[in-house]
Amino acid sequence: MLGPVNVAGIPYRTIWPDPDGSAVSIIDQTLLPHRFATVRLAALPAFAHAIREMLVRGAPLIGATAAYGLAVALRHDPSDTALGTAHAALLATRPTAVNLRWAIDRVRTTVAPQPLLRRAEAAWAEAGRIADEDVARNRALGEHGLALLEPIVRTRAHGRRLHILTHCNAGWLATVDLGTALAPIYLAHNRGLPIHVWVDETRPRNQGASLTAWELGQHGVPHTLVSDNAGGHLMQRGQVDAVIVGADRIAANGDVANKIGTYLKALAARDCDVPFFVAVPGPTIDWTLAEGSRIPVEERNPREVTHINGLDAQDRPAEVRLAPTSTQAANPAFDITPGRLITALLTARGTCPATTNGLRSLFPDLAPLPPLAPHTPELPP
Amino acid sequence: MLGPVNVAGIPYRTIWPDPDGSAVSIIDQTLLPHRFATVRLAALPAFAHAIREMLVRGAPLIGATAAYGLAVALRHDPSDTALGTAHAALLATRPTAVNLRWAIDRVRTTVAPQPLLRRAEAAWAEAGRIADEDVARNRALGEHGLALLEPIVRTRAHGRRLHILTHCNAGWLATVDLGTALAPIYLAHNRGLPIHVWVDETRPRNQGASLTAWELGQHGVPHTLVSDNAGGHLMQRGQVDAVIVGADRIAANGDVANKIGTYLKALAARDCDVPFFVAVPGPTIDWTLAEGSRIPVEERNPREVTHINGLDAQDRPAEVRLAPTSTQAANPAFDITPGRLITALLTARGTCPATTNGLRSLFPDLAPLPPLAPHTPELPP
Repeated sequence: MLGPVNVAGIPYRTIWPDPDGSAVSIIDQTLLPHRFATVRLAALPAFAHAIREMLVRGAPLIGATAAYGLAVALRHDPSDTALGTAHAALLATRPTAVNLRWAIDRVRTTVAPQPLLRRAEAAWAEAGRIADEDVARNRALGEHGLALLEPIVRTRAHGRRLHILTHCNAGWLATVDLGTALAPIYLAHNRGLPIHVWVDETRPRNQGASLTAWELGQHGVPHTLVSDNAGGHLMQRGQVDAVIVGADRIAANGDVANKIGTYLKALAARDCDVPFFVAVPGPTIDWTLAEGSRIPVEERNPREVTHINGLDAQDRPAEVRLAPTSTQAANPAFDITPGRLITALLTARGTCPATTNGLRSLFPDLAPLPPLAPHTPELPP
Repeated sequence: MLGPVNVAGIPYRTIWPDPDGSAVSIIDQTLLPHRFATVRLAALPAFAHAIREMLVRGAPLIGATAAYGLAVALRHDPSDTALGTAHAALLATRPTAVNLRWAIDRVRTTVAPQPLLRRAEAAWAEAGRIADEDVARNRALGEHGLALLEPIVRTRAHGRRLHILTHCNAGWLATVDLGTALAPIYLAHNRGLPIHVWVDETRPRNQGASLTAWELGQHGVPHTLVSDNAGGHLMQRGQVDAVIVGADRIAANGDVANKIGTYLKALAARDCDVPFFVAVPGPTIDWTLAEGSRIPVEERNPREVTHINGLDAQDRPAEVRLAPTSTQAANPAFDITPGRLITALLTARGTCPATTNGLRSLFPDLAPLPPLAPHTPELPP
């Protein structure tokens, strides 16, 4: 279960099973970047807690974790009732994550026809396949992304590094291995291409400052942290060659829901003629949504905006309050980047325009066959 | 010296002189929003420290503070040498602030022809005029801005509040009184117009979360704090009626240098058909710069990105580290918003398009008379 991405020189995946099928281990990502600690999940409530409290995050890793969680629940009770209860409990942990539903639906479909005594084993095997397929998909996605970056490198002066900007964390930590948005970057770096990453800090949860900066640093990829406000300025000054971000959910027309602030970077990229790529793990495409404005946007705890966690002067974890006590805050977790702002979607099957036809051309087997109903625009609230 | 803006119910200006001309008092804005403390400045080094370390910030307040600083220096030594030394020391504190140079040049020009014994008094009087003119200008700017907001209010359903988004702090605290971007908001609120402000937190120094949220709260203006990443999403959802920001420096063609991240909000406003207004105090216009790309952008300490200040659980000031120790950061302080993205400039003399002709029409007496040289585009670095 070794990965191509290193932590302090040791190859790791982000989730690895006990050989006996009783539990999995994960990295508690809420402690990063200040502490590297692993957690063993051996019962359904631990899995639900790990997903809900974001010990694991990122659509593909959430999916794999939930799949293993369903398998572990069935080991304790393989009945139809337990299957339904566990499925519902896992589904309720993160409402916007379409991978989560996809993964646990897949496990349920696999085990439902099985006799009770075989269910846990079948679910465990299916969860393992989901994890391995994620790794294979990310590697393929990385190769296709790298093929888009190589022509940009050739236009650079000799010795000039390729500068990529990324938002949030769609890296190794968000997947079972290698990452989605960062997969082309790891492959480029591993092959000796001179590359440098601008890392958006990604307020309010700072996944860029805490996760992306950490994993790039562990693997030795040159990078510079910037505030979310800086990306437009860097693009205006010609200091960004391409933007690559991940996707939490993609509508059938190519609109992308991703971490709040992605839309602003896409606007700047278009204004400055910088290519804007979105890395798309297949199951993230939601064919039931005709367009992005239909994607529900999670509103998270306002405390994430008014307070922030870090290490104090004595290197102890500490939370500080940033705003006056009486200040109210709002905290939408995602925004929608319209397909018109996206240069290309990067997928395991290749690259395509961020359009209905683009997605259908790459995923004819997954796209619903009847044409989508004509769109009725929604009025703003 | 009472202002129309209240702190805990008491009207305040942000800078107020001792009656005997020996010192001024300011609010130490680095302690806000957690502590309201005033500081008395009675010698040149204290003034230079207050400007450089941002105890006072905002172009108009920096200008007034520097003017008083020069007057206090002349009280100690009115010689030509001391005048030159004090002028240079104040000018060096903040390289991007054009108001600072304008204010101290004005004081120097006033006192230079005076006999030594009259210089301190003349400088003190001139600094007082600079402060009073700022208040009058902001009031006029606020009235013109309010005239642009009122038609938007009339298109709203009955009882619907007007939603304004602002970035950084171009409020009361950034000026001698009333603010620039916030002046129309205070006037609207004081006249009973239902108004609500979306406050960008404004990383990395968090002037929105710490200053704008604080001053709006002290005066009782309804507001909600959001991360800098959220504004595009709010505009997409129709939850922003107008954006109003300040300006640190304006080129002769209407391009605006303002706090890093302003450009991203201007792009979102254009994409979502939201009016984008820039409040311009007159002296902020730099007629010597043909366009915004010529404005030098200050690169500040990367520690502002990797560390953040707040109050800990015991309400003690504390700094926490956000990123891994090995992470490098970049910290550009401003970006340039092209005039093409700006709906109108708000000034004390009225509103105008963000163009050379727009600025010339409002400031024919200040604009240089010969036409500007044709522009040769700069290549990106």
